[in-house]
Amino acid sequence: MNYPSRLIEDAVNEISKLPGIGKKTALRLTLHLLKREEQQTRSLSDALLAMRTQTRFCTRCNSISDDELCTICKSTRRDAALLCVVVDTRDVLAIENTSQYTGVYHVLGGIISPLEGIGPADLHIDSLVNRIAQESIREVILALSPTMEGDTTAFYLQKKLKPTGVKISTIARGIPMGGDLEYADEVTLGRSIVSRVAYD
Amino acid sequence: MNYPSRLIEDAVNEISKLPGIGKKTALRLTLHLLKREEQQTRSLSDALLAMRTQTRFCTRCNSISDDELCTICKSTRRDAALLCVVVDTRDVLAIENTSQYTGVYHVLGGIISPLEGIGPADLHIDSLVNRIAQESIREVILALSPTMEGDTTAFYLQKKLKPTGVKISTIARGIPMGGDLEYADEVTLGRSIVSRVAYD
Repeated sequence: MNYPSRLIEDAVNEISKLPGIGKKTALRLTLHLLKREEQQTRSLSDALLAMRTQTRFCTRCNSISDDELCTICKSTRRDAALLCVVVDTRDVLAIENTSQYTGVYHVLGGIISPLEGIGPADLHIDSLVNRIAQESIREVILALSPTMEGDTTAFYLQKKLKPTGVKISTIARGIPMGGDLEYADEVTLGRSIVSRVAYD
Repeated sequence: MNYPSRLIEDAVNEISKLPGIGKKTALRLTLHLLKREEQQTRSLSDALLAMRTQTRFCTRCNSISDDELCTICKSTRRDAALLCVVVDTRDVLAIENTSQYTGVYHVLGGIISPLEGIGPADLHIDSLVNRIAQESIREVILALSPTMEGDTTAFYLQKKLKPTGVKISTIARGIPMGGDLEYADEVTLGRSIVSRVAYD
């Protein structure tokens, strides 16, 4: 495409580097910004740069944070004795979005994957063990994906945390809400029967 | 949603102000940028700001430009005697994208719309008349949308440009490529018969 302005072309090229955004969408967004107040583009530009350059990692849970401690670790309204172990900040956000969890988190920063050469030493596992030793943790919930890597990591963590005597649980695997029994795979369906829940 | 970082929240809020991008997509884009090199976010941020603050309008055709003249007006490979009149830069880009046009443009900057209070005086019509008087224009193509406002503007321009004696044409209205005759509206189908094209 022959752009009448190199500045427009640069903006389109940069925007279209984002996942799921092609040249056409990028051009539409660029022309949208051109029509709006200059302040909107300035705010967007500043917010992106600040987000990328100023965010750091919480020294307690390793989640993305503005300060030394993230807003969740700092909060006095969270149950600091309930610790949920997740792979990355995206999982923290997904669980926060459910509004069903009031405890704190520990972000591993990855998952054990021999194929990709990621071992336990590459993850924040030592700091997890330290937290359990130093903070009065009542229960550790392993919220890892039910994949080969997730199960391997969960198995490793169970062995590693057993000596601490802390209660360890995992998120339930079963039929998704709205899912149809008929179309569920047999492993999930089998697990949902084994892990059946008694009515109160 | 309870974000662990205000910087992330700001970035998500700013990105989701863009048309067609919701909070979920904005968060996905934000986390994507966090995973990539800092330089990518810096380039994106800079390109957006430069695009919004440094682009200006071509003094000849009123299209978006980096310099006094846009790349199309500056080019020596364009047919400067063929002038296409469009509403905005988006139309310039759409026509450029077809690779079928080698002439130059004149951007009106809007369309005559009594309902929105936009009259001929609000558009770059005087500068169009001046260009036809001063440059040796062979033909003026009116590339306006076949809507009420587009037709009104085209009618006004025809009357206004008639005294200059320049040849005036309009883009063809007819059945779109791949369109089905059966489903075409009668006005379009009628026009396509009246404006039929002889085989060479």
